[in-house]
Amino acid sequence: MAGSELTNVRSPRVKAARRLTKRAFREQDRRFLAEGPQAVREALKLDGVTLELFSTAEAELRHPELITEATLKGVPVHRASGEVMSELSQTVTPQGLLAVCRLLHVPLEEGLKGKPRLVAMLAHVRDPGNAGTVLRAADAAGADTVVFTDASVDPYNGKCVRASAGSLFHLPVVIGAPVGVAVRQLRERGLRVLAADGAGKHTLDDVDLSGPTAWIFGNEAWGLPEEILAEADDVVRVPIYGQAESLNLATAAAVCLYSSARAQRVP
Amino acid sequence: MAGSELTNVRSPRVKAARRLTKRAFREQDRRFLAEGPQAVREALKLDGVTLELFSTAEAELRHPELITEATLKGVPVHRASGEVMSELSQTVTPQGLLAVCRLLHVPLEEGLKGKPRLVAMLAHVRDPGNAGTVLRAADAAGADTVVFTDASVDPYNGKCVRASAGSLFHLPVVIGAPVGVAVRQLRERGLRVLAADGAGKHTLDDVDLSGPTAWIFGNEAWGLPEEILAEADDVVRVPIYGQAESLNLATAAAVCLYSSARAQRVP
Repeated sequence: MAGSELTNVRSPRVKAARRLTKRAFREQDRRFLAEGPQAVREALKLDGVTLELFSTAEAELRHPELITEATLKGVPVHRASGEVMSELSQTVTPQGLLAVCRLLHVPLEEGLKGKPRLVAMLAHVRDPGNAGTVLRAADAAGADTVVFTDASVDPYNGKCVRASAGSLFHLPVVIGAPVGVAVRQLRERGLRVLAADGAGKHTLDDVDLSGPTAWIFGNEAWGLPEEILAEADDVVRVPIYGQAESLNLATAAAVCLYSSARAQRVP
Repeated sequence: MAGSELTNVRSPRVKAARRLTKRAFREQDRRFLAEGPQAVREALKLDGVTLELFSTAEAELRHPELITEATLKGVPVHRASGEVMSELSQTVTPQGLLAVCRLLHVPLEEGLKGKPRLVAMLAHVRDPGNAGTVLRAADAAGADTVVFTDASVDPYNGKCVRASAGSLFHLPVVIGAPVGVAVRQLRERGLRVLAADGAGKHTLDDVDLSGPTAWIFGNEAWGLPEEILAEADDVVRVPIYGQAESLNLATAAAVCLYSSARAQRVP
């Protein structure tokens, strides 16, 4: 434990962490906040990612293994009062553990190196909770990389980090790539680029998904714009067998990604 | 338009609707609230379901077709001030339209009549947003019925209605059935009962889903209890190909339901 308990919400250390709740400061400081035991556990698994850890006394008692792990790794652990933790937390019920991490994303070229077989691309996705849930589903489905295009939400947004349930730390994430550039690079690497959209001519059931595939997922409310649909090799919709108008973004993405995962594995 | 604009949040009409935000009063009055144009549109498609409609002047201008439809169907339409709408609304940004509807659920026997081929059962699901998203996915995947067991959230909860995106009005919903009773009835009707759980011995990829199937989905945090796993014919997990610990409930349910839908349709 480095020093005594932080109780002053205006201390420089607390203010330096607090400002990371804003995107502009995250970009400037090249850091973000990862909240809760699950995120902290995953962050600590990666060398050099966790820069500082804030913990309440209660959380220390509940998760001694994380405090030990951080200490062993030379990560400064700051004991924080409940008030300080509330100041830093972006949740209604703070879980008492919060890591300051260095940004994780990689350039597009690096994200697509090797022979990626399944890539998820988020274009114009605005809701951070949805983005995090798609990231989690992409990780679960064994995707090699997730690309957040230039018009999508920041994956380091607290809600996105939380919804990703640790997956932000599991696979390469690319940020800010223009859709056109990403699509070209994916295609050059032999991936078929499919846009998931309710207006698709084909359904998931009648496309062959056994080859390397990149999926583009669009905005929650209005799907994908024409120019992106035009960039894709095909526009594919999840078939609706009942009366629902559509699926929500994250469930549609999970169904698409798992269809690919299955087709690539099950003969 | 019945009478002049409602501006008093304490008027009996507003109070009678307002109390429907509480489960006990919904059960007592046999009514619930459906908020927003999408829910109102779906409610109005069903005869005798919408009992009253509240609308702001702005929403009337934006959705004149819904006001006309309600009026044609003899549904009393109350013009409400913004303040009254905020009082009734359970969202941060009220959309200006809110219907009072009669409860829709049916007894288990009725929900399972005919020859159901795909049933979704929610056991111990506590988060109304998740429950609504599963309901929407079940509708999209062509499920015949959704069963909320006795320990699950109330599907008439405002967040569940909203997350269902109209699906609550699309397919038979059963409420409060004990798991054991529901499982027996499903099995008697020739459905195979599969519990979706991360601890499953089989994965989605190695079970035959072409026959009539009922899926049981459990709690967000701790899955399904032993006694429910024991009731099921099989426990099946969504395979995790990456490093994610699990999928979230709604995405896992969507993947399972769509695997069934596909297996039942695609030879």
